[in-house]
Amino acid sequence: MSESVLPIRIYYEDTDAGGVVYYANYLKFMERSRTEWLRELGFEQDALRDEEGILFAVRSVQVDYLRPAIFNDQLAVSAKVVGQRGVSLTFYQEARRADEVLCRGHVTIVSIDARTMRPRRIPRTVMERLALATENNS
Amino acid sequence: MSESVLPIRIYYEDTDAGGVVYYANYLKFMERSRTEWLRELGFEQDALRDEEGILFAVRSVQVDYLRPAIFNDQLAVSAKVVGQRGVSLTFYQEARRADEVLCRGHVTIVSIDARTMRPRRIPRTVMERLALATENNS
Amino acid sequence: MSESVLPIRIYYEDTDAGGVVYYANYLKFMERSRTEWLRELGFEQDALRDEEGILFAVRSVQVDYLRPAIFNDQLAVSAKVVGQRGVSLTFYQEARRADEVLCRGHVTIVSIDARTMRPRRIPRTVMERLALATENNS
Amino acid sequence: MSESVLPIRIYYEDTDAGGVVYYANYLKFMERSRTEWLRELGFEQDALRDEEGILFAVRSVQVDYLRPAIFNDQLAVSAKVVGQRGVSLTFYQEARRADEVLCRGHVTIVSIDARTMRPRRIPRTVMERLALATENNS
Repeated sequence: MSESVLPIRIYYEDTDAGGVVYYANYLKFMERSRTEWLRELGFEQDALRDEEGILFAVRSVQVDYLRPAIFNDQLAVSAKVVGQRGVSLTFYQEARRADEVLCRGHVTIVSIDARTMRPRRIPRTVMERLALATENNS
Repeated sequence: MSESVLPIRIYYEDTDAGGVVYYANYLKFMERSRTEWLRELGFEQDALRDEEGILFAVRSVQVDYLRPAIFNDQLAVSAKVVGQRGVSLTFYQEARRADEVLCRGHVTIVSIDARTMRPRRIPRTVMERLALATENNS
Repeated sequence: MSESVLPIRIYYEDTDAGGVVYYANYLKFMERSRTEWLRELGFEQDALRDEEGILFAVRSVQVDYLRPAIFNDQLAVSAKVVGQRGVSLTFYQEARRADEVLCRGHVTIVSIDARTMRPRRIPRTVMERLALATENNS
Repeated sequence: MSESVLPIRIYYEDTDAGGVVYYANYLKFMERSRTEWLRELGFEQDALRDEEGILFAVRSVQVDYLRPAIFNDQLAVSAKVVGQRGVSLTFYQEARRADEVLCRGHVTIVSIDARTMRPRRIPRTVMERLALATENNS
């Protein structure tokens, strides 16, 4: 299915006194990668909010930490849709350093109404563009 | 089993432009709570590193986001051991606002050798103190 | 003048691979301390926004880093108003560990209209409460 | 003198509930830009630590916040050496969005001995490469 890969350099801000990337920061990297995935599909989150009245919120994450990243590492962080329902999308994401997978997991996001903050169907234009991208990649 | 609860106030740094606490930041709160859990058990992580030569690293997280926390909220973030093996501990953790559970999940940490960075048995003193705390609470 | 001091424990999230607290994080601590200063004065920022229609934004910071804080340190971070104009307040702030000053600086915040995002006079109730607190402390 | 400019995209992690980039995060952007400046000059901070035994630490910052950046903004964050002494370098840095300067300031870093954590002369190779870059740019 539709996949996006974002290069991410590790700076001091990302590390902790253990000498490695702090575990919560991989969630930032994964969100950056999902943002770029959506942008590559042709959508900006601020436009979706202003024009369609929807926001995406994270519903759940499941992450395995396999090997640590360190200062100055150059990572590639991927986002790939592996599941979809009317209001949610599930991504499989990896943070890799060259051929090594350092961290991987699944993140489910839900589409919510920006006014009521309740779940609302993902806009049809997004689902259509996603279906098209998926076809082209298969 | 042995449980610890840490009060956490939400500041601007914790929120994002969606008006709610950024999803990665709950992992910071959970780690603060695990640190205080260990401290209440009588252990400091810097002393464990210097005297026992071990560090704790997160091996996996699984988190459900149920309701958003917002600026100025006063949360209670808990940490409770619900599983243990020779080198790892699994925690069940919740972030609550009064009676509401906003976020909950499981976090597994592993004990690693500070020099070799490979898994190493959790120090016996920690396991004994944990067993004692568990008994006293049951 | 009116001063507030907030205890802050250093967690892994605050440190970097240099083994010390990351320099940007002191600005988070200082903001937490200013938030508590305002709360002690009797004001909540969300209420000021909803009822008075004002936000506080940082206009400038000047910080000297004297000695590093490390993991597990217990700091005291102060906030004290040392200057005021119609739309701005200037704070002197310190991060101390016992008797040592680790970091100190000045932060100027401005009151802005939450709708227009332009500078707007600090609410009179805030200025009066501040004048009173200053008198009582002198 | 020697200048470097780094493109930085604003993600949710960078913003706060005021709808704008959180003030401490500009210090992260400025540090990323200084890291790339040093890299362009031909130096990696991990190599400087391992081979020369020196670290760079921030000694002081002075920052003015002129206009807010928001989610999805594309910024350019510059780093330019404007002062140097035996153990320190002072940078002038700006965060711009197209032609607008959003934030600007001076940051002074000092070279410290990685073992003793005391100030130590900046390695000659760094100063020579900096002098050369400065000449070429003038």
